[in-house]
Amino acid sequence: MSNYTARQIHLVSRPSGMPSHENFKLVEVDLPPPANGEVLVENLYMSVDPYMRGRMRADAVYAQAYELNQVMYGGAVGQVVESNNDGFAPGDYVLSNGAWQDKLLAPAQSLTPLQPFDKERISLYLGTLGMPGLTAYVGLQKFGEPKSGETVFVSAASGAVGANVCQIAKALGCRVVGSVGSAAKAEWLRDECGVDEVINYKECDDLTSALLGAAPDGVDVYFENVGGEHLQAALNAMNHFGRIAACGMISTYNNAEPAPGPNNLMLIVGKKIRIQGFIVSDHADMRPRFLEDMTQWVSSDQIKCRETVVHGLDNAVDAFLGLFSGDNFGKMIVKL
Amino acid sequence: MSNYTARQIHLVSRPSGMPSHENFKLVEVDLPPPANGEVLVENLYMSVDPYMRGRMRADAVYAQAYELNQVMYGGAVGQVVESNNDGFAPGDYVLSNGAWQDKLLAPAQSLTPLQPFDKERISLYLGTLGMPGLTAYVGLQKFGEPKSGETVFVSAASGAVGANVCQIAKALGCRVVGSVGSAAKAEWLRDECGVDEVINYKECDDLTSALLGAAPDGVDVYFENVGGEHLQAALNAMNHFGRIAACGMISTYNNAEPAPGPNNLMLIVGKKIRIQGFIVSDHADMRPRFLEDMTQWVSSDQIKCRETVVHGLDNAVDAFLGLFSGDNFGKMIVKL
Repeated sequence: MSNYTARQIHLVSRPSGMPSHENFKLVEVDLPPPANGEVLVENLYMSVDPYMRGRMRADAVYAQAYELNQVMYGGAVGQVVESNNDGFAPGDYVLSNGAWQDKLLAPAQSLTPLQPFDKERISLYLGTLGMPGLTAYVGLQKFGEPKSGETVFVSAASGAVGANVCQIAKALGCRVVGSVGSAAKAEWLRDECGVDEVINYKECDDLTSALLGAAPDGVDVYFENVGGEHLQAALNAMNHFGRIAACGMISTYNNAEPAPGPNNLMLIVGKKIRIQGFIVSDHADMRPRFLEDMTQWVSSDQIKCRETVVHGLDNAVDAFLGLFSGDNFGKMIVKL
Repeated sequence: MSNYTARQIHLVSRPSGMPSHENFKLVEVDLPPPANGEVLVENLYMSVDPYMRGRMRADAVYAQAYELNQVMYGGAVGQVVESNNDGFAPGDYVLSNGAWQDKLLAPAQSLTPLQPFDKERISLYLGTLGMPGLTAYVGLQKFGEPKSGETVFVSAASGAVGANVCQIAKALGCRVVGSVGSAAKAEWLRDECGVDEVINYKECDDLTSALLGAAPDGVDVYFENVGGEHLQAALNAMNHFGRIAACGMISTYNNAEPAPGPNNLMLIVGKKIRIQGFIVSDHADMRPRFLEDMTQWVSSDQIKCRETVVHGLDNAVDAFLGLFSGDNFGKMIVKL
């Protein structure tokens, strides 16, 4: 039994607008050996996700706000170093909510054992085989309800969630239109993932026109990751009885003051549109079916997984900030 | 067999912003006697409704746009004068879509026979027992899905639709909060209709605070008639898994330029809110059950019906324009 030193990133002040390094602090803390029922985990990879921005607000709606001067949390995969619980042994792979630190002392019941289908690709359990993948799987199917032959529009289409939405929609027989912010992302979605049309929103004058051009039969399902102009364009292009699965609105997360919304919400009435907000944690019951389907799709290469890997906890804040400028191509991962 | 003269109101130009008398023209036309299968109806009452503003646009989404230099249309109740169809005889009461004229020559199959529960209250078939009542009945129950004990918020709460929503929600055991634009309307809803709390939005500094005060347990169902600030306040006050039945957004109908929407749409995600737009004409299948329930509620005085009656086709345009300044208290009706 030995003591451990963990390096952690704490939130030390609440950002107004775009967060900066001043809001965070790298702290070293001593961890005792695992008490009865506890497990000491060495994190191998941690996740940075846009939803974490919401938890930095004092009035977080999603979930509890991060506390100041405490380690933040989020998805991480690691390996057990020392265990004081019969269910875990050194070397076991685990998924936890214990990110933003390189070592984690946690009660055994807070850890999910992983039997990785490929140990070289264990970071996928933070992406396509993890929370973002389940978000895509649940949101598209349960709230988008796409039928084969329908047109699905996905914003932030090469992101951790979006790229999975696009490819699941293709697997379901839909025509898929994605929106991204770079030519390289557009090319990957089109050439590797089989997405039918990709819009580079940074290079189009009018998103509605671009979307109508890419979806001449209109949009039946919109998977909403961005908000603002993307939502406005989607409403303009949607067909009657269209469905919007509202997963996030990243364009709004760093507004210091709330920004006005789309100017065409009356189309919700005229087109009889449904918008359904959802959060993946309400849908854990779908995880077993998801893991079965998704592992099969990934291992057969039917669904492509792209990651942007940043190295070291020291760079985790930059990785997080990069989510808001589109630095990530696919899932943003920090290798610890 | 004789000829008839009908007085009609035509749309002669498309309004930009608030319509004015210049957009309309009173025209007299000769009508031939009914041909085979046709019926000549004398309209007794016609309806003016906010949705008609949408049909005055060239790019109407709801339904076909009104054609220029043609009679407009909408709900009317009348009596058969002359019939060339076996299903109708002089004196029969009928409901039609033949408003904005005092006489109507129409194919028999476009007319709905009425067996009024009270001939003195036949105008109710344009309101509580007609399209606005069915709108309230369908929208609240099918898309609001209120449970007994939940809080329902209704905007334009003393209007043709809103007043019925409030009272149906009370009949279903809900706590009801309404928003109106005058003290007299607030008093009627509270004292006559049993609405629990009424906000006069014209007299409150901050609609969100007023709503949170009136709905301390939060809003579970929002029946949306108004849009803009009302939608923003509703989102702020809603509970997780709340439902919005989106029936209309009257605050936006006369915008010459589209106005920005609520600044808090991200709450749809965080609170897992559902918004469902709907149009009553898609739900005609619910009309028989509606008529049975509503006739019983009205004849037993459990649901109160308030009308503002304007006299004469010459005043129909004013009646219509009055909808946008809240001149109507309950259903706006034109007696012909």
